[in-house]
Amino acid sequence: MQMNRLTQQIQFIIEIDKLKQIWRQTLLTDSSRQENSAEHSWHIAIMAIILAEYAPPETDILRAIKMLLIHDLVEIHAGDTFCYDLQGNLSKAEKETEAAKKLFGLLPVDQESELRSLWEEFELQQTPTAHFAAALDRIQPVLHNQQTQGGTWRIHNISRDQVMRRVAPIEAGTPKLWPFIQQLIDDCVAAGYLQTLTK
Amino acid sequence: MQMNRLTQQIQFIIEIDKLKQIWRQTLLTDSSRQENSAEHSWHIAIMAIILAEYAPPETDILRAIKMLLIHDLVEIHAGDTFCYDLQGNLSKAEKETEAAKKLFGLLPVDQESELRSLWEEFELQQTPTAHFAAALDRIQPVLHNQQTQGGTWRIHNISRDQVMRRVAPIEAGTPKLWPFIQQLIDDCVAAGYLQTLTK
Repeated sequence: MQMNRLTQQIQFIIEIDKLKQIWRQTLLTDSSRQENSAEHSWHIAIMAIILAEYAPPETDILRAIKMLLIHDLVEIHAGDTFCYDLQGNLSKAEKETEAAKKLFGLLPVDQESELRSLWEEFELQQTPTAHFAAALDRIQPVLHNQQTQGGTWRIHNISRDQVMRRVAPIEAGTPKLWPFIQQLIDDCVAAGYLQTLTK
Repeated sequence: MQMNRLTQQIQFIIEIDKLKQIWRQTLLTDSSRQENSAEHSWHIAIMAIILAEYAPPETDILRAIKMLLIHDLVEIHAGDTFCYDLQGNLSKAEKETEAAKKLFGLLPVDQESELRSLWEEFELQQTPTAHFAAALDRIQPVLHNQQTQGGTWRIHNISRDQVMRRVAPIEAGTPKLWPFIQQLIDDCVAAGYLQTLTK
């Protein structure tokens, strides 16, 4: 029985290796290639450690780190949906719910329930921890786009208005960092990395 | 002053993106390419969550996760040293100490000290948390080599004796998983994925 439990856990650990093959639109800071969802998740989990002091007081940092590490796992079955792809985002929730069932279902039931609850809390965005985690998930691509002279924004002709809508949750998730993000986006517009015209 | 602190933190966050370009010998489970150190760190941090129940009682899981997320950062300056490269491992400690100074030195002093202490605890291997973290760091490549029919072991003609020396710390770090690892290695030998002759 115990061995069966371990077998399920190991099977899950092997399965999630596939997240290293899910490519996001974001470029690495040297523009050499796109980033995958596993290394992205690693990056924002470290951001939660480094930027913890800017989290709202009720934030549970361990829970935020766990959430960030697992929040993209559903992409193994559902794929990554580009945040500015309106059509793709219509069917995203349904595909990801199916994916969560399939993926977390590999685990023993108590752990399936733990990871599902972490993922659902992130998706529902109703706790300070989920808000903080989501803010980091949105800050990181802005840093990458700034480092790559517009990166994904330029490739896909994304406008300042679209970016502002996308980053809006940062204000609630980590209010202390909001002025910095606003300034960063203004700097990107001034440098010509981001266009002001709305598509 | 506060803005200066944030600037240092953001500079560190941008700098560590480079870990996504540090390639390890380990292959992904589908053998399609080598794994980088950022996605490897992500994988073993999730392993700490899933396999937490097998950690010795004194293990601090949050600290183990932090340790696993940052333990390879020094490779940004020092590169990844293949664990079976005896020559390369002679100068590894010195190079990594220099790298830690340079990299963690980007952070505000309190955080430089926090990350340095996490990294040193991992390197020194004198606490249950460090033992548990190191065990996971050694279990993951065994799983990958088993999934890739010998993977790195075959490419570099690694023998069972070499692997047994490499995985020995797993016994102390997570004694409950040691029988599983021994069995896994025996299975790999039986399947012809790992040779028994000593080089």
